[in-house]
Amino acid sequence: MKCSIPKGTRDFLPAEMARRNYIFDTIREVFKAFAFEPIETPSLENLSTLMGKYGEEGDKLLFKVLNSGDFMDGVDFNQDYRKVAPKICERGLRYDLTVPFARFVVQHRDQISFPFRRYQLQPVWRADRPQKGRYREFYQCDADMIGSTSLLHELELVQMIDAVFQKLDIEVTVKINNRKVLAGIAEHIGAPDKLVDITVAIDKLDKIGLGNVRKELQERGLADDQIAALDPVFNLSGDANAKLEQLSVLFANNEVGTKGVEELKELFGYISQVQPKCHIELDLTLARGLNYYTGAIFEVKAHNVSIGSICGGGRYDNLTGIFGMPDVSGVGISFGADRIYDVLTELDKFPATLGQSAQVLFINFGADTMPYCIRQAAQLRAAGISTLIYPDSAKMKKQMDFANKSHIPYVVFVGESEIADGTVTVKDMAAGTQQTLSMNDLLVMLQK
Amino acid sequence: MKCSIPKGTRDFLPAEMARRNYIFDTIREVFKAFAFEPIETPSLENLSTLMGKYGEEGDKLLFKVLNSGDFMDGVDFNQDYRKVAPKICERGLRYDLTVPFARFVVQHRDQISFPFRRYQLQPVWRADRPQKGRYREFYQCDADMIGSTSLLHELELVQMIDAVFQKLDIEVTVKINNRKVLAGIAEHIGAPDKLVDITVAIDKLDKIGLGNVRKELQERGLADDQIAALDPVFNLSGDANAKLEQLSVLFANNEVGTKGVEELKELFGYISQVQPKCHIELDLTLARGLNYYTGAIFEVKAHNVSIGSICGGGRYDNLTGIFGMPDVSGVGISFGADRIYDVLTELDKFPATLGQSAQVLFINFGADTMPYCIRQAAQLRAAGISTLIYPDSAKMKKQMDFANKSHIPYVVFVGESEIADGTVTVKDMAAGTQQTLSMNDLLVMLQK
Repeated sequence: MKCSIPKGTRDFLPAEMARRNYIFDTIREVFKAFAFEPIETPSLENLSTLMGKYGEEGDKLLFKVLNSGDFMDGVDFNQDYRKVAPKICERGLRYDLTVPFARFVVQHRDQISFPFRRYQLQPVWRADRPQKGRYREFYQCDADMIGSTSLLHELELVQMIDAVFQKLDIEVTVKINNRKVLAGIAEHIGAPDKLVDITVAIDKLDKIGLGNVRKELQERGLADDQIAALDPVFNLSGDANAKLEQLSVLFANNEVGTKGVEELKELFGYISQVQPKCHIELDLTLARGLNYYTGAIFEVKAHNVSIGSICGGGRYDNLTGIFGMPDVSGVGISFGADRIYDVLTELDKFPATLGQSAQVLFINFGADTMPYCIRQAAQLRAAGISTLIYPDSAKMKKQMDFANKSHIPYVVFVGESEIADGTVTVKDMAAGTQQTLSMNDLLVMLQK
Repeated sequence: MKCSIPKGTRDFLPAEMARRNYIFDTIREVFKAFAFEPIETPSLENLSTLMGKYGEEGDKLLFKVLNSGDFMDGVDFNQDYRKVAPKICERGLRYDLTVPFARFVVQHRDQISFPFRRYQLQPVWRADRPQKGRYREFYQCDADMIGSTSLLHELELVQMIDAVFQKLDIEVTVKINNRKVLAGIAEHIGAPDKLVDITVAIDKLDKIGLGNVRKELQERGLADDQIAALDPVFNLSGDANAKLEQLSVLFANNEVGTKGVEELKELFGYISQVQPKCHIELDLTLARGLNYYTGAIFEVKAHNVSIGSICGGGRYDNLTGIFGMPDVSGVGISFGADRIYDVLTELDKFPATLGQSAQVLFINFGADTMPYCIRQAAQLRAAGISTLIYPDSAKMKKQMDFANKSHIPYVVFVGESEIADGTVTVKDMAAGTQQTLSMNDLLVMLQK
């Protein structure tokens, strides 16, 4: 029988688990310092909760779970498979953490005090074509604050991004924009209906250059004078504050644009109070999740690696509207654990001591010394020190090979004299030195 | 639109998460002290990996995931739904952690050093009829050691059970038996082929009494003299060692029975070295997982509550055989987190301080004092202290109500004088007292 797992899924061995937990623990620690509270939602949601929330493409990528029992009973199979699927599957696997969170807020509104901030670290599933860095099962690490429009919340997201990547020792740039500024630009050039076309095109500025952006705008049906009217936006200069001043002038009679600039000014003002270590950039070409976000938008890229965005988020004004609870404004971010893993690997920034399991191995010299070893090992374990007794009285070489292969730093030998004296002989595997100690002294040494 | 989740699944709110994490963290801490290493396997497995591993009933309870794309292509729907299901579903949701672990060991045999000990805390899914305490998605907490037949491993399981329930402050009894002793009993009464019938019947001794057990044995086809031959087993007296001595005599010419008794003697000998706090009991009527276990078996029950087994496990000699890797002996246990949750709730043993999120709330008096508040809050957060700034300059009463409702122990007030002096005024919400402190003094107070 061949052993394999479904395409796009992964087993995690202990060394990978240690690295992944290092990322999750770091993110969780920061979420907690900012007083976010954990929640979990079921892996299985009713398909009616999920369908239609991620666009037509998303509906296709939902994993659907076959109904139990006679799923065929009363179903007409002489129709398109897309019509049959919802008849034989009432449930699907979670596709992201956002829609389940919206459902959660509406369902538990009476048990939550607003403003409510939650974090959620759980896997999601997408029937996407697997490829390098893209999986069918992967974790999302989301933090959201809902029930307030205060821009202090946007500041907190920036602080959290800064704290996470400082702790992980990754240099990053946080790009910030505001959806209202993008709307203001579309209005400014007299093409408010072309907002999506404009943002899709100028989003490519870095990659294809200004000439090609202009060409694309033309192809997307913008008039030459409209495209020319974009020039002042491309020609903004100076730091974020200087750019925002120039935009203020440009947006003199432009309500939505002015609102966007004011929000960005307030946010950048707050940010200046906390002096983040990461690089902060006002990027007017940043467009992410246009149909979804309504205010500030964020995207984080790591320096010195060519890996895409490792964190992103923004303000949405109507998350729970789809479930019949309107006017709940929120703002949130999502850390991409798999990409952060790739960045840390490429930059060789994982701490060297991660994933060490046993700290101490007792060599097994057979039944005579075992009772003594069992008692001493129990003492170490009670003190939280990860301790092994080699299970069989195998040859010394085999036991030492195991210690080496498992990177166990201390090996303990117990013979008649140790038992008589109430001591243990400990070998420091890295230094190659050996000493005989009381259990108290060993405990003190190991707890250092 | 009605918000709901599938039957048998659950949302976990922050208070429940805190309690669940208390259980998971306790178990994980003990697993780590015994040098178990974490692994994770995918939620989705190939159905071929899962089918036929849990009996006919288990096959029915597997959640099957519909193939992506045109799942109907080439499938004949004019047959029984049980035949159609595997044609339209190649994958299923994990049903337990044991079969995926066996698959993992075989698949990664070259990356693992044996003896290998892993722990795994992940959800599993079963399409069981939901009822009180039985869910369709629930966590299992498993620890297994494979690649050695040493009974030191059985001892370690007992030590871990003892440590977990001591830390959780739950009084428990660990019942221990050995599958070989059960086989020995069947052989002793001349009915080795009736092993299952005998164990099923005597497993009920506690509930239905000796008379009814005898009746059931009769119904299950045992002869009167065979049933009478069981009497010495029911009449064993004294502590575990005394009972084992009596069994030794009974099993004088009984190889498998003698082996079982020897294993139990060795294990009880080891246990006497570590003097566990929990109650340990040799229970010859304990039968669990008969088709699966081959040596020691364990079951844990909590005192003073009528909740079933909260932990169980045993020795299996051929876990990976189903995947073509024979002769790998292992031993493991599984903690039932949901039942442990119920026990802690019923005994009121959850620590009172669990689930407190924010430790400090800065009252929002508007834009003038905000920059100062932002800077001071950043200091607390950098020190890992969970800190909130109320996002809006709402009425004082509303902000204080929020603090009370959220059980935040300290509320900070900042006005002109605090800013001038570089201090904060802190109200201890429980004591009702208020004092003005430097940030350093506040930090010291909060880190106590």
